Amino acid sequence: MYRTNTCGELNLAHCGHEVTLAGWVQRVRDLGAMTFIDLRDRYGITQLVTDEHTPEHVKEAVNHLGREFVIQAKGIVRERASKNKNISTGDIEIEISSIRVLSKSEVPPFTIQNDTDGGDDLRMKYRYLDLRRPMVQQNLFLRANMAHVTRTYLSEQGFIETETPVLIKSTPEGARDFVVPSRMNPGEFYALPQSPQIFKQLLMVAGFDKYFQIVKCFRDEDLRADRQPEFTQIDCEMSFVEQEDVLNTFEGLTRHLLREIKGVEVDVFPRMPWSVAMEKYGSDKPDIRFDMFLHEMTDRLKGKGFQVFESAPYIGGICVSGVAEYTRKQLDELTEWVKRPQIGSKGLVYIKLNNDGSIRSSVDKFYNEEDLKGIAGLMGAKQGDLILILSGEREHTQNALGLLRVEMANRLGLRPKDVFKPLWVVDFPLLEWNEETQRYFAMHHPFTSPKPEDIALLDSDPGKVRANAYDLVINGVEIGGGSVRIFDSQLQATMFRILGFTPAQAEAQFGFLMNAFRYGAPPHAGIAFGFDRLVSMFAGLDSIRDVIAFPKNNSGRDVMNDSPSPISDDQLEELNLIINLPSEK
Amino acid sequence: MYRTNTCGELNLAHCGHEVTLAGWVQRVRDLGAMTFIDLRDRYGITQLVTDEHTPEHVKEAVNHLGREFVIQAKGIVRERASKNKNISTGDIEIEISSIRVLSKSEVPPFTIQNDTDGGDDLRMKYRYLDLRRPMVQQNLFLRANMAHVTRTYLSEQGFIETETPVLIKSTPEGARDFVVPSRMNPGEFYALPQSPQIFKQLLMVAGFDKYFQIVKCFRDEDLRADRQPEFTQIDCEMSFVEQEDVLNTFEGLTRHLLREIKGVEVDVFPRMPWSVAMEKYGSDKPDIRFDMFLHEMTDRLKGKGFQVFESAPYIGGICVSGVAEYTRKQLDELTEWVKRPQIGSKGLVYIKLNNDGSIRSSVDKFYNEEDLKGIAGLMGAKQGDLILILSGEREHTQNALGLLRVEMANRLGLRPKDVFKPLWVVDFPLLEWNEETQRYFAMHHPFTSPKPEDIALLDSDPGKVRANAYDLVINGVEIGGGSVRIFDSQLQATMFRILGFTPAQAEAQFGFLMNAFRYGAPPHAGIAFGFDRLVSMFAGLDSIRDVIAFPKNNSGRDVMNDSPSPISDDQLEELNLIINLPSEK
Repeated sequence: MYRTNTCGELNLAHCGHEVTLAGWVQRVRDLGAMTFIDLRDRYGITQLVTDEHTPEHVKEAVNHLGREFVIQAKGIVRERASKNKNISTGDIEIEISSIRVLSKSEVPPFTIQNDTDGGDDLRMKYRYLDLRRPMVQQNLFLRANMAHVTRTYLSEQGFIETETPVLIKSTPEGARDFVVPSRMNPGEFYALPQSPQIFKQLLMVAGFDKYFQIVKCFRDEDLRADRQPEFTQIDCEMSFVEQEDVLNTFEGLTRHLLREIKGVEVDVFPRMPWSVAMEKYGSDKPDIRFDMFLHEMTDRLKGKGFQVFESAPYIGGICVSGVAEYTRKQLDELTEWVKRPQIGSKGLVYIKLNNDGSIRSSVDKFYNEEDLKGIAGLMGAKQGDLILILSGEREHTQNALGLLRVEMANRLGLRPKDVFKPLWVVDFPLLEWNEETQRYFAMHHPFTSPKPEDIALLDSDPGKVRANAYDLVINGVEIGGGSVRIFDSQLQATMFRILGFTPAQAEAQFGFLMNAFRYGAPPHAGIAFGFDRLVSMFAGLDSIRDVIAFPKNNSGRDVMNDSPSPISDDQLEELNLIINLPSEK
Repeated sequence: MYRTNTCGELNLAHCGHEVTLAGWVQRVRDLGAMTFIDLRDRYGITQLVTDEHTPEHVKEAVNHLGREFVIQAKGIVRERASKNKNISTGDIEIEISSIRVLSKSEVPPFTIQNDTDGGDDLRMKYRYLDLRRPMVQQNLFLRANMAHVTRTYLSEQGFIETETPVLIKSTPEGARDFVVPSRMNPGEFYALPQSPQIFKQLLMVAGFDKYFQIVKCFRDEDLRADRQPEFTQIDCEMSFVEQEDVLNTFEGLTRHLLREIKGVEVDVFPRMPWSVAMEKYGSDKPDIRFDMFLHEMTDRLKGKGFQVFESAPYIGGICVSGVAEYTRKQLDELTEWVKRPQIGSKGLVYIKLNNDGSIRSSVDKFYNEEDLKGIAGLMGAKQGDLILILSGEREHTQNALGLLRVEMANRLGLRPKDVFKPLWVVDFPLLEWNEETQRYFAMHHPFTSPKPEDIALLDSDPGKVRANAYDLVINGVEIGGGSVRIFDSQLQATMFRILGFTPAQAEAQFGFLMNAFRYGAPPHAGIAFGFDRLVSMFAGLDSIRDVIAFPKNNSGRDVMNDSPSPISDDQLEELNLIINLPSEK
């Protein structure tokens, strides 16, 4: 062992002890008679000091230290003259008697501290140095801790962590599968799992009863800011349960994590039907830390000659408190904001309830003061409030209003990162109509069971059928989701028919699981949490990248080691592959 | 919830309670007046019973039950007339009042019980049914438990579990890498990690201090009986430590697992130099549950005119107790055994110390009774013992004797599966000479550090240099291994030179890690345990396949879902790949 203690543990109780520390040189301050060295390791920072009593060769060695040198130093712990209350070792320092440079360092490309001078790209290229910064380390330690607390909790609840294969079968519907050529099986490929869905259902057929796994999953899709080609899930499945059993179990896990990790107690998670979430929040992942509900006024605003509204299937608005004083410029800017392609509205109507009691709108031509006051009353608006109204196709406009609602809340500081408001969104539609292909798709996956009371609608009005599917949402972020699975082969056959599969197609794509179901499948249901997202929320971060030790960029590249990269001709030949780049085609 | 209790928890204390159970029908016994149903779930088996008081429709339903049907049954717990002491619920039975078939089953292809009638292939094809057998489930539950105990232990020791990437850089030396074509980076590939070696060393450079991970690794090699293309490691690395620190930490883990999981206390693990292991046991992974040491007699047996021995660089033997009565046929069979290619000896010489006091050998022509008695004395052989002697090139013959030693111990029952004898094999050679390429190779990897006292030999006699490398061996099985790493760039440069790398080649293959080392690398060392093997040893099994939920066969195929498999032309085109099978070349 190169040390007797870490750089985070010494205090006044150790005064007079001879200790040996090892770590990185954070900073050297030469004050002439005395020199101070801040020595850093994972556990903290300890001040080393040389003065007139220090042997010359030690002073000489200290003179040649640079930032990020790795050293070992021996000395006596003594009380500091001027204490530093910001660090755990701030009461003491080490009067060093010997020093040894274990490893030199070139000048690092950015400073190794929380408020570093390195930009994103540089820090990603030198990720091993970025990971030295205490706040980055803390994110990773939080992640490790959350994984361990999760495992302990689920194990104590009788869940069995079971590893499922990473090299799995590639299936015809496997768009966005990463594939792995097999050398031993020429011309054939494995796929990397987008989730262990099939395997966890097989484990239920196998009688494992309660399964979980914290597991890497893979998706070869065009990456958005907050997606990674490999990501981690808390993946679970249970047998002989109904929807409420799953919700209660994973509400328990979430509550336990909030208590153990964040010291936060939360109320019973509300169960909100998807239709209510859309109507009141304009989102299937509502942020319920603040109200600012959507109000529909489709009927109310028609018949006054405003053509935009007259032709709109849906008109709705939100009431934003205390911003009636928004200037024309601010309102124009907000109008531009809702017109962005991500929001996709055609325009924005506003009503200002000025502090002087007057009321003004952008549609004064069509609505008189009485009309406007009526709307304000409907929405519970008061002096100083600003009402923002969008119109258009129902679901699209609700979504736009939902995004506007969150944007206004951000501006008003209504989304504090240290407040956690989880809820369950339930009763999702089972099917989604696709205009392009003129058929229904499963909103979750084809094994998601319809609500029993809606099964009768499967043939008559499939779009109205609700699923036994649920999402856990915290602070407007979808943390996880799952469903009760179909385990009845006749109901499954009906589902396939409605989804437009011929029996042969269903057999080709799902035959493997259907075969297993022929030997006694228990009722089962499951859920998966996005672990990266959960950790980043607990860390108060906006991106999952900051809670991944070695993340990839938006092109799926690891800029630190410059991968992916070409492979040798020998390797290609062994794999029976030829590369055919677009330009060569 | 479909049940009030599991099939493993009811006992006399529950008598009179109304309960609902759910599970699989293990067996139906119709005794006329009464019918007994054994209902099985993960937790056990509970007996359900119908008799003259049972409603007719329930009796009727019971008549149609088959093996592996999934049912839900309600009834009253009552004391059994004839108790079954072999199961936890054997004191009670459930007098059922209602029954519901949740899911029917076709007749399963083999019986779902520990002593099944299904062969290996059939059980692998229907792995989800094989996994219903209690002993197979127990293996997987043991695995989950060992993983959890390991995680808890290492976390408590300050290790941080950190996930490293699965999609990594393919390197030129990456023979046996599985590769993954990148759609977003045409013509480029990721590799799947054979181990997280580089990343864990980077985490040390990043100051993580103590890292661990239970992690999937991948190797595309021709599979032997006990290898899998994907396997699991307990992977660790520590900073500011020396070899003994690593050994003590992981001796602590191993001891903890043996205590917690097996209830076994073991002594301090011996540290055995590699050279001693080879001399005494003929193996770098000696089974020390029994002695039967190798004895060298190269000098002693020469000069008597036996040409085989005269020309042999090494002659050695083992003394096998109590088998002097082996017949000629048995000895011939043993001779054939040592001539098998896996052993590779040219022949076998034996000396029998018969129970009547006489002594006979297969080389009586060259050695008189006095010679033979001398050898017997040297080996501590006594009446009734059989001495077996092999000769040839030193290391090869030691290995052959080591294998013969284990074979004889197996025949004599000297390898009980419930006795655990761990040891550390240390001081491995740093380098291995390769005759074919006429150069040295790193025995572990090029970052393994030489023993400081041997560094002077690096240039003069590289083959003699010992490494700071170590293996944990239990009962003749290599459970794990690791090394102290080089963190000094000059020593590393020397190593590369001796391994025949030009600076440019070293840069191309390892530049990425070497770059990180330029910014202050701490002394560090690590280890990895083969988790599959560790679990199979704890389970008393010979194959790792039995402790993997969904294993692959010797061709790397999953016979359950018939993967790997072809992918579509669209997928190939998106990946810019053309398949070029051998027959088409």
